[in-house]
Amino acid sequence: MNSKKNIAILGSTGSIGKSTLEVVRKNPEYFNIICLTANKNVIDLAKQINEFKPKYTYIDSTNLLDDLKLKITNNKTKLIGTTKDLCDLLASYEIDSVVSAMSGSSGLFLTNHVLINNKQVLLANKESMVMAGQIFKKFKQNIIPVDSEHNSVFQLIDRSVDYVSNIVLTASGGPFRKLPSSEFKNITIDMALKHPNWSMGEKITIDSATMMNKCLEIIEAFYLFDFKPEDIGVLIHPESIIHSIVNFLDGSSLCQFSEPNMQIPISYALAYPQRTYSGRSSYNLADKNLTFHKPDLKKFPSISFAYNALKTSANHCLVMNAANEIAVENFLKQKISFIDIFNVILDSFNIPNNEVIENIDEILYTDELYRSKINKILNKYTF
Amino acid sequence: MNSKKNIAILGSTGSIGKSTLEVVRKNPEYFNIICLTANKNVIDLAKQINEFKPKYTYIDSTNLLDDLKLKITNNKTKLIGTTKDLCDLLASYEIDSVVSAMSGSSGLFLTNHVLINNKQVLLANKESMVMAGQIFKKFKQNIIPVDSEHNSVFQLIDRSVDYVSNIVLTASGGPFRKLPSSEFKNITIDMALKHPNWSMGEKITIDSATMMNKCLEIIEAFYLFDFKPEDIGVLIHPESIIHSIVNFLDGSSLCQFSEPNMQIPISYALAYPQRTYSGRSSYNLADKNLTFHKPDLKKFPSISFAYNALKTSANHCLVMNAANEIAVENFLKQKISFIDIFNVILDSFNIPNNEVIENIDEILYTDELYRSKINKILNKYTF
Repeated sequence: MNSKKNIAILGSTGSIGKSTLEVVRKNPEYFNIICLTANKNVIDLAKQINEFKPKYTYIDSTNLLDDLKLKITNNKTKLIGTTKDLCDLLASYEIDSVVSAMSGSSGLFLTNHVLINNKQVLLANKESMVMAGQIFKKFKQNIIPVDSEHNSVFQLIDRSVDYVSNIVLTASGGPFRKLPSSEFKNITIDMALKHPNWSMGEKITIDSATMMNKCLEIIEAFYLFDFKPEDIGVLIHPESIIHSIVNFLDGSSLCQFSEPNMQIPISYALAYPQRTYSGRSSYNLADKNLTFHKPDLKKFPSISFAYNALKTSANHCLVMNAANEIAVENFLKQKISFIDIFNVILDSFNIPNNEVIENIDEILYTDELYRSKINKILNKYTF
Repeated sequence: MNSKKNIAILGSTGSIGKSTLEVVRKNPEYFNIICLTANKNVIDLAKQINEFKPKYTYIDSTNLLDDLKLKITNNKTKLIGTTKDLCDLLASYEIDSVVSAMSGSSGLFLTNHVLINNKQVLLANKESMVMAGQIFKKFKQNIIPVDSEHNSVFQLIDRSVDYVSNIVLTASGGPFRKLPSSEFKNITIDMALKHPNWSMGEKITIDSATMMNKCLEIIEAFYLFDFKPEDIGVLIHPESIIHSIVNFLDGSSLCQFSEPNMQIPISYALAYPQRTYSGRSSYNLADKNLTFHKPDLKKFPSISFAYNALKTSANHCLVMNAANEIAVENFLKQKISFIDIFNVILDSFNIPNNEVIENIDEILYTDELYRSKINKILNKYTF
């Protein structure tokens, strides 16, 4: 690597943030941590600050600022008090790359701010691409996807889609791949939170169980890589070793694989266009079986939702994402059943969504509008 | 594609030559066939000439020239009478790319001639790389490998080996993958000529059965891509879908796959750095199982031969290639047994091989010298 990159991590105490710091820990000569931010996890944030000694830190819940101060043992880290100051820092010469790893839609505003200030974004927050893909796609030269499937496609095509006939995102199929749909009504939270191949945050784990995760990823791929919806396929691959496939017009296909560990795509995104150690080894295929199946669209209507949304409008993507977030939140609170996640999303498609949306403020405003309507739909399904 | 490429095919009536013409047939707007050559297959050569109307043709067996003339129905094709005239044509402005598809060591002289005249070579003749790798590697910027495994590696790294930790060539394992070695003494020609996954020429089919094909490919990869021998691995993959794997230092791996059909790597090599239609579709992984195993080096000492040869000397590669060609030829004539192919090669390693070799003439001369000594070894094993 040629020079040291100055990194800000938005959401450093989440699963992606922690994996990012794991990669940075292996490469102290290549990456400087300039800023770490968290939503409310003071304990982990303080530990990270004490280890990495970033020049700045920020916590969303400003009432936790004093608590955080007490836990920081170094005097090198400045506490940023306002979102405006955080924005100024992210736009400044002090930052080269921003890891956008906040969960849900809250990352949207900051990701947009970083992009319009011409900084590189390492995007782990797929919801922001689903909500604002139409706007963010203008900046895609500065977006490096961290999501393992999209990072995989990016490695294979490196922004050039010449001669590509179509791409395939793989999916583990989640914990209910083999469960008959007649049993879906009995799915409990505990069952849905047990992902067969990896541990992640709760929201994404439920998205994996409903396969809404793959729905969001199809939309993310559409905006990142500019393929037609029908040229973005999904293949169930229970071993989760191959992350994506790129099919070329000459019958040749390239694919990327690794053990399912986020340090690998993160290290690629951090070091791009070079590569560096991720702390993980190559996956050895010896004595392994890789299997592949078509997804069952009847059991998992989520995949079809993506194509319908892309063929309808960007607003349709926005309302679907909001409905999914609200439904998952309420499933996790045991207020609705697993199958009603699908029903809430389906009902949300009846919300009129013809608003003209041209900027991030309008997206955030319309998102709020949709959410209030979705909360009314939700009443139909709550226990 | 930007402009039409002018192609000569050396060995157009063999399996690679025919597949090349199949690709050209699909892309008349991109490729001009300027010259077709064959060893002695007048009937097929004449048919090809009548279809593709190349400006020139050449047949090795000059006694067949009159026969060929009679069979050619078009008056656009000039018959080249001498090797010197063929060399002049290949070096001229009329040719952009030369497909080197002659089997065995006979392609060496012409491939060298084309390379020193700064033309692009699409190399399907792995023996010439095994024999003259030390000399040809100087020209590797002009060599595009056609061998499916090497073409696959080339697609993945495109001449840049930065950040690659090692590569893996896959192998079908041939027809005797599951046969206990105690049964190897009973292998007949018919058994050895039945390849499980594809039909090719007799020499390469036997090389597949002995896995000497993979031995030659390891050496070819060494010279083409400049990896250390220990960083070129082999993995048995009976389905022959994935052709190679490139492992990077960050734990990420890229691989290329397709149905096992030579039109795919050939179309890539022809169109490089672009891509064009090969006449074959992408391979659909749905409902497929891909399996992988370590090779059994006791049953197939051929893999170890490659590493020993590379660690010893270029002359060691030369003598091994000659011993293999002679042994296979005599196995096909039912003069030696299958397992004695290995024994002839093993014995050939005792031939003193310290000659200083600095050019193609010296390679050809030394090769002849080795062959006369190997023919003496052969007497020990002939029935």
